[in-house]
Amino acid sequence: MINDNKEHYMRAALAEANKAFDKQEVPVGAVVVCNDMIIARAHNLTETLKDPTAHAEMQAITAATNWLGGKYLADCTIYVTLEPCAMCAGAIGWSQASSLVFGAADKKKGYRTISDSLLPPKTSVESGVLEKECRELLLRFFKSRRG
Amino acid sequence: MINDNKEHYMRAALAEANKAFDKQEVPVGAVVVCNDMIIARAHNLTETLKDPTAHAEMQAITAATNWLGGKYLADCTIYVTLEPCAMCAGAIGWSQASSLVFGAADKKKGYRTISDSLLPPKTSVESGVLEKECRELLLRFFKSRRG
Repeated sequence: MINDNKEHYMRAALAEANKAFDKQEVPVGAVVVCNDMIIARAHNLTETLKDPTAHAEMQAITAATNWLGGKYLADCTIYVTLEPCAMCAGAIGWSQASSLVFGAADKKKGYRTISDSLLPPKTSVESGVLEKECRELLLRFFKSRRG
Repeated sequence: MINDNKEHYMRAALAEANKAFDKQEVPVGAVVVCNDMIIARAHNLTETLKDPTAHAEMQAITAATNWLGGKYLADCTIYVTLEPCAMCAGAIGWSQASSLVFGAADKKKGYRTISDSLLPPKTSVESGVLEKECRELLLRFFKSRRG
């Protein structure tokens, strides 16, 4: 049941990633969940906004803290379709989110390529939720770009 | 003369840090310089915006890319009064800024406490410009908070 919930929320993040795909953005999506409720949904908008900081997680954190009215996301879980980069892992750390769940690994730019300690030790991390779907969407995007 | 320019731009970043101080924000300021012109000025607004991502550098990068109309800051230098954290170093990396100049070191949260490789190898880094002034403003802030 808990795992079903994780897949449910990752599907919501994937729906966001698909919105990015439709805008010709690298398809990454994120949602923030607090007390079993999605309080923020966001997708990568770096090309649309011409802003290298506009990753899905950054916008999801900004939207979620805005919704909560405070700058921390304690007791929140961030779901993201791709392993966060160092910037986003740093932001997740500042937000004090209790958990991170991601889909596909990012062997080139993922935070773990630099250091696991980019996330605070108390942040629980789970990877591989709907990994195949998350990865395939990214592969389809990069294939379409090469086409 | 080059060094004088660096101090000139760091003074502009310090002026931003002072604005943060006046808003009871941790006093960090940043400017982005392109072709000897300041194209963006920003200061920490995490409390005001209740957003943990609203560091001076993040906002300066967003403002500068908006001004340039593209998502990269090639040939730009980012001046910041305090050593960037991991999140901000990651953002500087994505922006492809050619140089980073910072004032005071941050031995607790600075990116170098995790890894120098948070910045791309081609990004030149200089530290210690107006270090004393940058550090003293921060010390004055934390002293006033304890007061």
